[in-house]
Amino acid sequence: MERNIYLDYSATTPVKREVFEEMVPYLTDYYGNPSSIYKIGQSSKEAILLAKERIASLVGATPEEIYFTGSGTEADNWAIIGTYDSLKTKGNHIITSSFEHHAVLHSLKYLEEQGAEVTYLPVSKDGLVNPEDVKNAIKDNTILITVMMVNNEIGTIQPIKEISKIAKEKKILFHTDAVQALGNIKIDVNDLGVDLMSMSAHKIYGPKGIGALYIKKGVKIENFLHGGGQENTGRAGTENLAGIAGFGKAALIAEKNFDSHVLHLREMRDYFLKKVSERIPDFNINGSMEKRHPGNLNLAFNYIEGEGILLLLDKEGIQVSTGSACNSQSLTPSHVLSAIGVPVERIHGSIRFSFGDFTTKEDVDQAVEVLDKAVGKLRKISSVSKEKGW
Amino acid sequence: MERNIYLDYSATTPVKREVFEEMVPYLTDYYGNPSSIYKIGQSSKEAILLAKERIASLVGATPEEIYFTGSGTEADNWAIIGTYDSLKTKGNHIITSSFEHHAVLHSLKYLEEQGAEVTYLPVSKDGLVNPEDVKNAIKDNTILITVMMVNNEIGTIQPIKEISKIAKEKKILFHTDAVQALGNIKIDVNDLGVDLMSMSAHKIYGPKGIGALYIKKGVKIENFLHGGGQENTGRAGTENLAGIAGFGKAALIAEKNFDSHVLHLREMRDYFLKKVSERIPDFNINGSMEKRHPGNLNLAFNYIEGEGILLLLDKEGIQVSTGSACNSQSLTPSHVLSAIGVPVERIHGSIRFSFGDFTTKEDVDQAVEVLDKAVGKLRKISSVSKEKGW
Repeated sequence: MERNIYLDYSATTPVKREVFEEMVPYLTDYYGNPSSIYKIGQSSKEAILLAKERIASLVGATPEEIYFTGSGTEADNWAIIGTYDSLKTKGNHIITSSFEHHAVLHSLKYLEEQGAEVTYLPVSKDGLVNPEDVKNAIKDNTILITVMMVNNEIGTIQPIKEISKIAKEKKILFHTDAVQALGNIKIDVNDLGVDLMSMSAHKIYGPKGIGALYIKKGVKIENFLHGGGQENTGRAGTENLAGIAGFGKAALIAEKNFDSHVLHLREMRDYFLKKVSERIPDFNINGSMEKRHPGNLNLAFNYIEGEGILLLLDKEGIQVSTGSACNSQSLTPSHVLSAIGVPVERIHGSIRFSFGDFTTKEDVDQAVEVLDKAVGKLRKISSVSKEKGW
Repeated sequence: MERNIYLDYSATTPVKREVFEEMVPYLTDYYGNPSSIYKIGQSSKEAILLAKERIASLVGATPEEIYFTGSGTEADNWAIIGTYDSLKTKGNHIITSSFEHHAVLHSLKYLEEQGAEVTYLPVSKDGLVNPEDVKNAIKDNTILITVMMVNNEIGTIQPIKEISKIAKEKKILFHTDAVQALGNIKIDVNDLGVDLMSMSAHKIYGPKGIGALYIKKGVKIENFLHGGGQENTGRAGTENLAGIAGFGKAALIAEKNFDSHVLHLREMRDYFLKKVSERIPDFNINGSMEKRHPGNLNLAFNYIEGEGILLLLDKEGIQVSTGSACNSQSLTPSHVLSAIGVPVERIHGSIRFSFGDFTTKEDVDQAVEVLDKAVGKLRKISSVSKEKGW
């Protein structure tokens, strides 16, 4: 069998066997529409409730506060556009950071065309938003603050509790994109004080095509998908039963295995970094190593192009990313690395390595060996080019 | 084993075995993010293209004109809200019928709050929209006409080609919700002349949680989900690979088996109607029997409540609907039956029976027997109540 070493868990994760098994009945025997009042429809409804209980438990919410969506992206769109639609007569100003996921940034861009005013806060070179900046950006017409919990490219953990405290004092709704955080750092929505929080299944070993939005009890925002009365009239469309059941199971496993999961990721990540440090000179770490997703590493290799490393690694069966997956087909430099002030030539040499439950020490050993050779090869070409004035 | 006779195929269909098998690899071995540039990401991308080819082939489109969504509801929302967002500076008037699916009606209601003006056309007592009415409703500021292809409650087939001709003459975009039509009547988007068309997998023996919007080449509407560059920058969010593969397979089967599928549905439906006519007096058929989905029947049983029949049938393992599934938990009378002028007491006695590939003659025989008893029982109670003045 060909070698396959997957170091791109932040892009997506494989579905765990137990998750798949939880989904199978809803793709075979249990097909009742949850909106139907007969018995087989009601069993489907119960499956949805169980999944909500499991996800709620992972984040300290109640099942009634969990609304399923088709993706983390839909959750972000709903939170932001739904809040704007509800509150635009009250105010049109929204505060965010300049290194949010595109699902947030592009939703805001859309709203700017509709008349919204958006403040994009700077980010420190460590990759952190400063709560003081949030405070200073608040105006009388501010209706929403949206700052991600964990950055998807550099893994830095934002001071969500401090920001939500500021939001609460000013009675402004606070949304956080927790897609990268879920299952990887402890989340308690009440302790953190968030009003709206986006989640996705396929980043925690669940299926693609299912996400969720936490909406704090009492918070009312406009619907995003209009139609039938599903999700307590909150989100129309026949429910993705299999996806929902899978998301629920993935959340259950994430809660149960949280400590060992985090420990394993950190071990793999730190072992990788140690090995790289021993073998490869001239690289920098993008973003703070202290306040960071346990399975994320983002390294800038000087003098070369990340795309080149990526292709050489892929040839050897090793998968990594430059920037986020959603961006990896684009040639514009990462807006995240730009935001934290990484010089453009170093951005082009940056690679995200992300580790997961199935990563082994052998994977890391092999990956570093291949990486070492790839970097060496590319640097040789690069220095020859330089010498010859190419 | 308990009896289970499913006569609610218009609410949702079971996933076919071959469809499930097509999905399994994407829930187990093939998990690459289609946006990633490495090989396993590219295999995922190829799977998406194959599914698009299959769906495109079923409706006479090209793969590039198919955009995946999380549901038929999302496709409707996108078509309607996306068109409005694109063209609202040109005009704000939209024409629709009064018996559309709620995904259309509630999207329009949302747009009315944003400043849209909507004309809701009447429907004949046969359940048909009159193209002349569409023509007469057009104004200088009309930007969109949206009329469903097949009604979800009474199955009537609308004169889409005639309406689209009118739209084309006036250079107005035309959208049709083809969720109930797909796989059940012949669809050729070019022959019909539609610009936008909504579809859903779970009505054609595919999985729940995946739909698609056909957008004719050259037609530009605003995105609905904002974020990453997926779906040729048309619809953000990591693709639901398994759902997409399943939808593709379901479309392939629907195209291959089209004639036998339609024949079987018509046989089952007509046999059911014959049997009911022989045994149960005093009922009416809602909607035209000529221009109708081959597997749909909507009957009004006089003097009784449909909910009562539904519950008695459910007790005997038979699943049917009153109104659409999305409405079946609501007590407001069906807006579809109201639109075609069914008196309110007859609406309350109306039941939708919908037949599918797995329906057998034995199912029909048993269902009619149980139905006969249920109707008899309820009518007895009802006449006793009347005599006693309850």
